[in-house]
Amino acid sequence: MKKETIDRIRKFTEDRDWDQFHSPANLAKSLVIEAAELLECFQWDEEKYDIDHIREELADVIVYSQNLLDKLGLDVDEIVNAKMELNENKYPVEKAKGSAAKYDQL
Amino acid sequence: MKKETIDRIRKFTEDRDWDQFHSPANLAKSLVIEAAELLECFQWDEEKYDIDHIREELADVIVYSQNLLDKLGLDVDEIVNAKMELNENKYPVEKAKGSAAKYDQL
Amino acid sequence: MKKETIDRIRKFTEDRDWDQFHSPANLAKSLVIEAAELLECFQWDEEKYDIDHIREELADVIVYSQNLLDKLGLDVDEIVNAKMELNENKYPVEKAKGSAAKYDQL
Amino acid sequence: MKKETIDRIRKFTEDRDWDQFHSPANLAKSLVIEAAELLECFQWDEEKYDIDHIREELADVIVYSQNLLDKLGLDVDEIVNAKMELNENKYPVEKAKGSAAKYDQL
Repeated sequence: MKKETIDRIRKFTEDRDWDQFHSPANLAKSLVIEAAELLECFQWDEEKYDIDHIREELADVIVYSQNLLDKLGLDVDEIVNAKMELNENKYPVEKAKGSAAKYDQL
Repeated sequence: MKKETIDRIRKFTEDRDWDQFHSPANLAKSLVIEAAELLECFQWDEEKYDIDHIREELADVIVYSQNLLDKLGLDVDEIVNAKMELNENKYPVEKAKGSAAKYDQL
Repeated sequence: MKKETIDRIRKFTEDRDWDQFHSPANLAKSLVIEAAELLECFQWDEEKYDIDHIREELADVIVYSQNLLDKLGLDVDEIVNAKMELNENKYPVEKAKGSAAKYDQL
Repeated sequence: MKKETIDRIRKFTEDRDWDQFHSPANLAKSLVIEAAELLECFQWDEEKYDIDHIREELADVIVYSQNLLDKLGLDVDEIVNAKMELNENKYPVEKAKGSAAKYDQL
């Protein structure tokens, strides 16, 4: 995300004095709630989906992810790179290629 | 996220030939599953949490969000700004300030 | 569920002195967490699923539902019948038959 | 649940010819979606909750659990008792009493 988009997310919370509600636990709950609303776009039919609805629900997930990064003072590149390193080790290309099996069943 | 972090996420999927599993519906399921694992860090105690565990689970949420953006060809700044505009209209500062009420109950 | 199964669930909590952790909010979190673990059985393949794994995860959902009923002093038949009446009115047979559309789009 | 309540749930599905939408995977998605709606009752405040709203969302979780039991031909007492036996072994009273730690950290 661009710096100005992230700033817009932060200003939205600040202007409304909502930081008081943004405990890490409340933001984690919010993330699940929004992710489930995104899943609802695929509840009964996985092929015919409403892309405009998906755009809104995915944006909600991304906004709450940013809120949680901010709340905990985390750097997105740092945590994602650390996790990708774990993933790369758990799923070596030669074993995982073309397989959807979990790492402990490869 | 930096371009190189996003590229690492994309390369991880490509190297393993996993695009075949990344239907939008499967990625939406994955987002809920990871968001619920994040919530598990706060299941019985919302104050004492394991920050290292949270870093990993939040990273998973962010990685799957990027996968879904990629799969649907969406631009993160575009969808987040469109949603923020909706939010700003639904929650005008003068009404929403300091309140956790839903927009239809303000 | 049979009375003796419900009693076993209650005794399990009592014996471990776990009622202190079973706030309604914590039980609601637990329900989402277990439902997401159930969904994980269908994450990448919806046809080939591990029925033994599903049995365990669905049981967890049912156990936490019972815990929440108990915590809030709710009668399962009362709340389910009240909700079924709402559903029957929202989805009249002549309109809803064979359609997966939401009630506000019928 | 009483036999007549379960029959009402089954008749609701049959009358609307909705069994075609009730794949195990779709029901698992529905369970997460409804559990997340239940969680939404506790999103920003865990103490002041709307009990009528909770009754409806918990009923939805229970109804979809019954749908999934039916779809997979599972017996609720059988799967819950099997899971309770596992839980009783994983969380022996002398170790787990008064502790919210996960079994592998007891």
